[in-house]
Amino acid sequence: MSLSSHQVAGPVWNLGRLNHVAVAVPDLEKAKAFYKNVLGAQVGETVPLPEHGVSVVFVNLGNTKMELLHPLGNDSPIAGFLQKNKAGGMHHICIEVDNINAAVMDLKEKKIRILSEEAKIGAHGKPVIFLHPKDCGGVLVELEQV
Amino acid sequence: MSLSSHQVAGPVWNLGRLNHVAVAVPDLEKAKAFYKNVLGAQVGETVPLPEHGVSVVFVNLGNTKMELLHPLGNDSPIAGFLQKNKAGGMHHICIEVDNINAAVMDLKEKKIRILSEEAKIGAHGKPVIFLHPKDCGGVLVELEQV
Repeated sequence: MSLSSHQVAGPVWNLGRLNHVAVAVPDLEKAKAFYKNVLGAQVGETVPLPEHGVSVVFVNLGNTKMELLHPLGNDSPIAGFLQKNKAGGMHHICIEVDNINAAVMDLKEKKIRILSEEAKIGAHGKPVIFLHPKDCGGVLVELEQV
Repeated sequence: MSLSSHQVAGPVWNLGRLNHVAVAVPDLEKAKAFYKNVLGAQVGETVPLPEHGVSVVFVNLGNTKMELLHPLGNDSPIAGFLQKNKAGGMHHICIEVDNINAAVMDLKEKKIRILSEEAKIGAHGKPVIFLHPKDCGGVLVELEQV
């Protein structure tokens, strides 16, 4: 009988599909116009999420989405990123999981740093965690339970 | 009759799905182990592409792929990126198109800078172009004809 590494550590969890690629943009209207008018993608409306400190626009690419993020309010989690990357840039990727609490237990056991003690409700109203980029090859990885 | 902006400018082209998210990594084996053993993703073999100056590993996420890139040879196109981003990081996104030459004509008309005069054969043996990040909200965008 063979067990995957996930099953050895505790409750089973499985990685799913790429939910979105998040891009921080300094000018939301300009970014929307690029994806809609230049590339011809399906671009949604601007959704202000004051409790998360961002305005969000989804770009539908059929198999997955891009999430355009712009700071909202004085304490935005992406303000520092845009200060360092004035033209904007890729901020994080979000991959779906089926059991976020099992993932948290397993990742802690594997010494992967998680940016919160436990899962929080993310921008889509679902439980999420963020993994430390230094433990993920330089990439900020969000896991979202679906 | 309504025409999309693509149809006004010249031959029709359509944007497709997200083909991959490319990540430049300083340590390919460590990155493979992270996606395979920590996240439990399906990780392919290392493919050396000396003519493109990179070694490539695909991570299959079901709906799309991640492409782990590591420099190969002395003149790698990602060497400078890793010098600036020592821990690695997201390098580009690749979106599929149905007609790359029509896209080139249309994008030039729309004053989007393309990093080559015309489409070149990319790492997957298909015609690709790269768009200037400054014209794409800070994101290096590859378009690949499929």
